[in-house]
Amino acid sequence: MSHSIDLTIVGSIGIDTIETPTEKREEILGGSVSYACAAASFFTHTGMVGVVGTDFPQTYRDIWTQMNIDLEGLQTQTGKTFRWSGVYEANMDNRQTLSTELNVFENFTPNLPETYRDAPYLFLGNIHPALQLHVLEQTHNPRFVLIDTMDLWINIAKDDLTQVIQKCDMLTLNESEAQLFTGHHSLMQAAKTLLELGPDYVLIKKGGNGSMLYSRDDLFLLHAYPLETFADPTGAGDTFAGGLMGALAASGKTDAEAIRQAMVHGSVIASFGVEKFSLDRLQQLDRDQIEQRVQHFRNICRL
Amino acid sequence: MSHSIDLTIVGSIGIDTIETPTEKREEILGGSVSYACAAASFFTHTGMVGVVGTDFPQTYRDIWTQMNIDLEGLQTQTGKTFRWSGVYEANMDNRQTLSTELNVFENFTPNLPETYRDAPYLFLGNIHPALQLHVLEQTHNPRFVLIDTMDLWINIAKDDLTQVIQKCDMLTLNESEAQLFTGHHSLMQAAKTLLELGPDYVLIKKGGNGSMLYSRDDLFLLHAYPLETFADPTGAGDTFAGGLMGALAASGKTDAEAIRQAMVHGSVIASFGVEKFSLDRLQQLDRDQIEQRVQHFRNICRL
Repeated sequence: MSHSIDLTIVGSIGIDTIETPTEKREEILGGSVSYACAAASFFTHTGMVGVVGTDFPQTYRDIWTQMNIDLEGLQTQTGKTFRWSGVYEANMDNRQTLSTELNVFENFTPNLPETYRDAPYLFLGNIHPALQLHVLEQTHNPRFVLIDTMDLWINIAKDDLTQVIQKCDMLTLNESEAQLFTGHHSLMQAAKTLLELGPDYVLIKKGGNGSMLYSRDDLFLLHAYPLETFADPTGAGDTFAGGLMGALAASGKTDAEAIRQAMVHGSVIASFGVEKFSLDRLQQLDRDQIEQRVQHFRNICRL
Repeated sequence: MSHSIDLTIVGSIGIDTIETPTEKREEILGGSVSYACAAASFFTHTGMVGVVGTDFPQTYRDIWTQMNIDLEGLQTQTGKTFRWSGVYEANMDNRQTLSTELNVFENFTPNLPETYRDAPYLFLGNIHPALQLHVLEQTHNPRFVLIDTMDLWINIAKDDLTQVIQKCDMLTLNESEAQLFTGHHSLMQAAKTLLELGPDYVLIKKGGNGSMLYSRDDLFLLHAYPLETFADPTGAGDTFAGGLMGALAASGKTDAEAIRQAMVHGSVIASFGVEKFSLDRLQQLDRDQIEQRVQHFRNICRL
């Protein structure tokens, strides 16, 4: 039995090779849309828009299917799947990209199945802003659109990016990207400048130091859920944003309070995600564990 | 009319010359005990233990007196007052010390007036751990003792420091000092190790990223109150800790909930403090402004 898509997510799908100070994992499932859809799937019926090559393992596809992610928007193109490899420095504060092979991702043109076009929630994950715009143009007046981006597009496609941002409800980027985009070191000033582009909300991610949500008349500060250790921070931002959009879609709301609660849930999902590589931890996760951690999170952050 | 001292604070008194990317101020009032006592003075009757030289300006002494800080524990020694000068790098994330002249601070032996020895709350600000121990030994069984330190003492006097820490209720240090002391990059792991030294609470300061309070069975995460701009971060940690101890002393309690609320107030005072150089902003501050900001802080951090 199929039912309608509540949340459409577009982004990259990659086969990653990741080395941390303690472990190396080769050819594991990654990519922004994989992390984001997995996180959203705990809360709402989510459709994935992305591309893989003919070499993409069926076992990886099965992981998504088991999480009840709709794959009608997933294209398979002749050729190899996008590959990325990177190494984390000691302490995992920084990482270095060792190689990037775009493969089928190079000529990706996202096409939304008819069933995805009416989804009230849309998350434009980090791909070229012209493609994000192309996705947005295929949709039928979504209620809430979140857009993510990266330093590359700020550097080489700022006009396209600015154009698509102004059509979105919320922009998310990390601290250094907000500073790069605006030239302001102060996040408060950077956020103000970004709000002037059009979105109602700007969500700045600070990794292990949490995140900040800005709007014209409100501000929300959220910590990262504290972990004693973690295995791999890859995809944490996508997991956070995907969980946020999933929880927001499940609430059926778009107001500031609903967004706060969605952020709390997104952050908690992300904290589980980094405990293991790839989707290994999210595959074992259930709603009870999420809600327990949300309760603990509220308790340790209560002023 | 004098009344008894609720909180004794010991630390350094300096005449500072500070350069930020936008402004340079020469020979301004500084030092850990000056910032900490000023912050505490909003909440409780505070006694200052420190040393100045015969060159110390009467106008600076008047600032403390106007804030109702008790100065019976303030020594004046023949010679010049401790001087420090530093310059902040662009963005004020880092600073460089240009010069340090210990002057009368070099032979400082803190002596507590009789009226200070019964104070139920004691804040051992950042001085040599042997002197902190000397202060502690002069007191009559205080209810709650907070100790601060710095990388220098961790590097050259770790045994002395360890000895005094085990006699205190709470240890505060910043992120890099906690990592230096324990060898753990993870703050959760560093805090666990530091708790094993004896204190019931470890408070790790993360500058603009807030602070974390650890105890054996609880954890509290606190943001820094967000500011669009600030003038000078010098003394922010001392202001935070002094405000915390002042608010805790005013509550008459020492439990985890009282400490949380004291931290919130300390953080708010620190956020005011950095808006201007030296004590310039704190001199103009009143309790209404503090409580208003506390309310706003609670609101923007509510999960």
